[in-house]
Amino acid sequence: MLNIVKARAHTNIALIKYWGKKDPHLFIPMNSSLSLTLDEFYTDTSVKWLPVTESDVFYLNGEKQSQEETKKISAFLDLFREKSQHFSPIEVASINFVPTAAGLASSASAFAALGAAMNRLTGLDLSEEDLSTYIRRGSGSATRSVFGGFVQWTKGNSHKTSRAKFIDDASWDIGMLTLVVNSNSKKISSRQGMAHTVNTSQFYPAWVEAANQDLIAIKQAIAQRNFQKLGEITEANGMKMHGTMLGANPPFCYFEPGSILAMNAVRTLREQGYACYFTMDAGPNVKVLCRKSQMKELQTQFQALLPDLTIISSGVGQGIQILESH
Amino acid sequence: MLNIVKARAHTNIALIKYWGKKDPHLFIPMNSSLSLTLDEFYTDTSVKWLPVTESDVFYLNGEKQSQEETKKISAFLDLFREKSQHFSPIEVASINFVPTAAGLASSASAFAALGAAMNRLTGLDLSEEDLSTYIRRGSGSATRSVFGGFVQWTKGNSHKTSRAKFIDDASWDIGMLTLVVNSNSKKISSRQGMAHTVNTSQFYPAWVEAANQDLIAIKQAIAQRNFQKLGEITEANGMKMHGTMLGANPPFCYFEPGSILAMNAVRTLREQGYACYFTMDAGPNVKVLCRKSQMKELQTQFQALLPDLTIISSGVGQGIQILESH
Repeated sequence: MLNIVKARAHTNIALIKYWGKKDPHLFIPMNSSLSLTLDEFYTDTSVKWLPVTESDVFYLNGEKQSQEETKKISAFLDLFREKSQHFSPIEVASINFVPTAAGLASSASAFAALGAAMNRLTGLDLSEEDLSTYIRRGSGSATRSVFGGFVQWTKGNSHKTSRAKFIDDASWDIGMLTLVVNSNSKKISSRQGMAHTVNTSQFYPAWVEAANQDLIAIKQAIAQRNFQKLGEITEANGMKMHGTMLGANPPFCYFEPGSILAMNAVRTLREQGYACYFTMDAGPNVKVLCRKSQMKELQTQFQALLPDLTIISSGVGQGIQILESH
Repeated sequence: MLNIVKARAHTNIALIKYWGKKDPHLFIPMNSSLSLTLDEFYTDTSVKWLPVTESDVFYLNGEKQSQEETKKISAFLDLFREKSQHFSPIEVASINFVPTAAGLASSASAFAALGAAMNRLTGLDLSEEDLSTYIRRGSGSATRSVFGGFVQWTKGNSHKTSRAKFIDDASWDIGMLTLVVNSNSKKISSRQGMAHTVNTSQFYPAWVEAANQDLIAIKQAIAQRNFQKLGEITEANGMKMHGTMLGANPPFCYFEPGSILAMNAVRTLREQGYACYFTMDAGPNVKVLCRKSQMKELQTQFQALLPDLTIISSGVGQGIQILESH
C-alpha cells in the first residue's frame, strides 16, 4: 500500500464545447465535446493517507482551505474510497501552475490531477478511460484532461459510458494563444450559465444537434490534418455556444469590450494571412488556435493590436502523469 | 391632378425584430414584427411631376444623387406609376431629420415618406394599410412607419397580405433613448446579415418560432399596459436576433465594445430601480425603452456612466402626414 502519490494534469480548452448537463448529479452532458490539452497550464496534486482519527485536509497553493471547500473535495475522494474500500482520511495538497494573470478556470486540471493521484494511491489503477468517468464527477471538463492532444468526451448515458477518448496527439504544428481580457472571476459561473441556458434558451435543442454535427466534422478535419477546417469549426462552434445564451430568458452574455476587440484582432490577422481562429468559454478571455510555428510571431502581432492585454502562448500538453509514489 | 406633394414619416424601432426575408423580391418577411414609431427621427420628402422628356431626379439633403441611387428610387416610383397609370418622370427631394450623430438607418422613414407623397401625388389615395404594402417594397422596416405608436407588420404571404397594422398609440408614458456607440456605417448591411443568417444559421428555425411567440406575448403586454413585460420581451427578442448571427456560418456580430458597456449600463440602472430595457438592431447602437417621464433623468444617469457616448431621447412619433399638396 502506497503512502503518498503526486500527479500532474494539464488543463484543456474545448474546441467543440460542453454546454449543458443531462444529469447534473452524475455530470452527464447533453452533447459530446472535443478539446485540446495545453502544456502551459497544469496542476500538481499530492495525496497522502492520514490516521483514521483525523479528517480530510485540503491545501491549495499552500493555503489550507475552508471546511466548505474541503467538503467538495471529500465528496470526490469518497468515489475512490468507496470503489477501493479504503476509507481513511486524506491530505490533499494542490498547486495550480496557471499563470496568475490568465484568470483561467483550473477545475479541469485540478480534478484530473486529484483523480490521477487517488487512482494510484488507492491501488485502483484504472485505465485512463475508466479513470475519466470518476474525474468527470468532480468537474465535467476535467474528464478530457486524462489525455494529451485532441480528446473527445463522449456524452454516454451512465456513469460508465460518459468518458474520455483519445483522438490525436496534435503533434502537427498546433498551438494556442490566450488573450487575457479580464482575470477576475466571472459573475455568472459556467454551472449557472449552462443550467439557465438548458432551462430557458429557445436555441438549445438546435445547439445540441449542431454540436453533434460539428463533432463529426472536426474529427474529420483532425484525421485529415486540415488546420483551416479545424479552425473554422472551432470558431463557429464556440460562437454557437454563446448564441444559445442570447437565446436564453433573460438573455446573458460573457462578452466584455476587450473580448470584442480580441475577436476583431483575430479576424484582422487572419485577413493578413495568419492561420488563426478564436474560441471563448464561459468568461471574457479569447483563446486563439494557431500554428505552433507562428505562435511567437502572432503573439507580437496581437500585442501590437491589443497593447493592454496579457497574452500567453502554449503548446500541446500531455495527459495525466504520476510524478511521485511511495 | 396635383403638381407637388410633401409628406413626413417617422422612423421606427422594432421591439419584435424583422430578421430574414421569405421573398427577397417582394420583401415578404419570415416573421411578423412589431415596432415603436419615434418622433425625433423623421424624413420630409416632396415629389413633383417633371415633363415627359426628362428623367427621374433624386435630391437627398439638398444633394443630387448618383444615377445608381436614383435607379433604386425610380424602381420604387414605378410601383405607384404603374398602379396609377401616370408615367411621367418625377423629382424627389428628401431631407432626413435624423440627428447627424445618431448614425441611425433612415430607410424606414425615407421610404415611408416617399410612399406617402407618391400616394397623394398620383391620386391613388390608398388607405395607410394598403399603402404600407407598397412602402414595404422600398424597405421592409418602412412598412411599419405608416402608423404612429406601436405597429405590427404582419408577415402575410403575398404583396397584398404583408402589411402594417396599427396596434396602440403608446400614449402611456413611453419613451426611447438612443445610446450612440458608433455613427459610422456598418460593415455588414442588414440585408447581407439577414440573408447570411437565413441561409446558414442553425438557430434560424427556432428564431422564427420564438418571434411568433414573442409577438403574441408583447401584444398582450401592450393591451395590459404592462411596461415591465413589454421591456422584458423587447430585450429578450432583440438578443435572440443577435444570437441567430452567432449561430451563422461563419458567425458574425454587430456588438462593439461600446455596445457591451451600454447594455451593462442599462442593467446597472435597472438594478437601481429604473424601468429600462435595451434592444439592438443590425448595428452597434443601443436603444433603451423607458418611461417618458423618466427619460430626462435617465439620460443624465446614462451620460454619467457612458461619458463618451452621444445620447438622444425621443418620444412616440405619429404616422405619415401630408405637409403640403397643390
